[in-house]
Amino acid sequence: MPGTGSLQVVLDLVGIAVAASAGAWIAVRNGLHLMGGVLLGLVTGLGGALVRDVLLGAVPPACLTDWRYLVTALAAGLFAQRFHALPARLDRAVDYLDAVWLGLFTVAGALKAVHLGVPPITCVLMGVVTGIGGGVLRDVLVNRKPVVLTDEIYLFPSLLAALVVVLAPMVGASAAAVTVPAAALGTAVRMVAIRRGWHGPSVRRAAPQL
Amino acid sequence: MPGTGSLQVVLDLVGIAVAASAGAWIAVRNGLHLMGGVLLGLVTGLGGALVRDVLLGAVPPACLTDWRYLVTALAAGLFAQRFHALPARLDRAVDYLDAVWLGLFTVAGALKAVHLGVPPITCVLMGVVTGIGGGVLRDVLVNRKPVVLTDEIYLFPSLLAALVVVLAPMVGASAAAVTVPAAALGTAVRMVAIRRGWHGPSVRRAAPQL
Amino acid sequence: MPGTGSLQVVLDLVGIAVAASAGAWIAVRNGLHLMGGVLLGLVTGLGGALVRDVLLGAVPPACLTDWRYLVTALAAGLFAQRFHALPARLDRAVDYLDAVWLGLFTVAGALKAVHLGVPPITCVLMGVVTGIGGGVLRDVLVNRKPVVLTDEIYLFPSLLAALVVVLAPMVGASAAAVTVPAAALGTAVRMVAIRRGWHGPSVRRAAPQL
Repeated sequence: MPGTGSLQVVLDLVGIAVAASAGAWIAVRNGLHLMGGVLLGLVTGLGGALVRDVLLGAVPPACLTDWRYLVTALAAGLFAQRFHALPARLDRAVDYLDAVWLGLFTVAGALKAVHLGVPPITCVLMGVVTGIGGGVLRDVLVNRKPVVLTDEIYLFPSLLAALVVVLAPMVGASAAAVTVPAAALGTAVRMVAIRRGWHGPSVRRAAPQL
Repeated sequence: MPGTGSLQVVLDLVGIAVAASAGAWIAVRNGLHLMGGVLLGLVTGLGGALVRDVLLGAVPPACLTDWRYLVTALAAGLFAQRFHALPARLDRAVDYLDAVWLGLFTVAGALKAVHLGVPPITCVLMGVVTGIGGGVLRDVLVNRKPVVLTDEIYLFPSLLAALVVVLAPMVGASAAAVTVPAAALGTAVRMVAIRRGWHGPSVRRAAPQL
Repeated sequence: MPGTGSLQVVLDLVGIAVAASAGAWIAVRNGLHLMGGVLLGLVTGLGGALVRDVLLGAVPPACLTDWRYLVTALAAGLFAQRFHALPARLDRAVDYLDAVWLGLFTVAGALKAVHLGVPPITCVLMGVVTGIGGGVLRDVLVNRKPVVLTDEIYLFPSLLAALVVVLAPMVGASAAAVTVPAAALGTAVRMVAIRRGWHGPSVRRAAPQL
């Protein structure tokens, strides 16, 4: 599938560029130096795919052997640090960037798992791991609580996008045809949740049974 | 060995349910929302086995392909958040839950390594990694110092249980026959250490050689 | 290549002993107990090689199956805790120990990747991952920002040493012949940077485009 392959690579590179920029901005926010920002960009951009590939046994991970991925992440990390002053509200800008790659990486992760022929439930999980992994690693490295644990509507859009990719072939759609719509869906749900300040279900606090 | 297999699965599922509950209670304790608690329960319940399987090359890890493990961890994480108000002293309750799965996971981890035929010293290490891994990942995610680093008698019970499982076949006992006793031993030692406030050897502070 | 092999093992063991000592001193600094210090020593001494081997699919990692590596890390961790009062300035002493194993592990990591036949760019990355990995894991476990993110000239010496190892064969030198010089180069650059307080390029702060 040559067409699918090219589209996939383009989406991957866009996701990596956006994620590496978000990582670099978090580095600026935390007062790290230039090399630290580049490294945090690399971790954010490639971390999710790295964890997925290790869990699936696809080693060495493609993002460590394909120079296009590395160069994209490096360039975006440097570029973002140069222009970090442009967004007036850096935290909010990072949240929106995170939403973009959350959708893209989730779909890329689920598709790779589907191609490797693992069970459907594992494909969904691999989508989520790829989608949230880079952000978790980034946040742990700067001693920040991972956004997936503190933001209520973050895991859900990723789960949704992964489910669409994995279930589509079961109803006759080709996985390739749902790539862009599924990524857009995940990103859109996350963005609306940020903008509207949506909250998820909170823990129902039972009264102590005294 | 069908009997051993079933027993093993039952012990695994009990361990996962207990660990996911402990993870979910730590999430409640840290003010996380419902999805965050479910995710932290999953990480605590499946994390140790995940790391072990990656280190042994048994990928994709069984806990990501077997729906029983996933469903158990998800259900326990939800259930524990619903009833977190029952234990009057949540921290102490988490410590006791941790003791239960410390024993169970250590034994399960060591047995899997034995079955895969790696060297005895590696089997012992894999038992310890499986026993402490989920808790370490959970604590790192919520910026808490891992209990294995702060509590003095935590690594020791895990090491003890793993040694029993690995050494038993060398003195003629079947690994299956020592499964439950070894897990019970590890759990019991940890529980007594909590209850009695046992301390391990502390660092002997040499006077500065001035 | 028997000679190279022995030299490699000796360098590995020296690196592990130094790194485990640094890990144990960080444990003392953080008020951890004896077992916690031993564990942190193990993680610091073996962590980088562990991550590298997992990424390269060389599992179970050699450092978990070879008793010499384990015993060296354990002994160094215990020994360092016994004598932690000797260095008057513990933090600075840790920085210098870190410089020593940064060079050694980077070179060992890059060489292993070269032997496994992965692409040159992956070999360089594997060198850096092995060089910085143990320190990152150690720092994350004690909720300390990883030194590679906070110190400006830390990633650079590692990258330099890895590049020398990977590029040397392309200009006719044997990888074995550059092992010691490359490690010494990485360590020396890092040490001079500490001693002279060198700073790397900082983020160029563009004025907000208002």
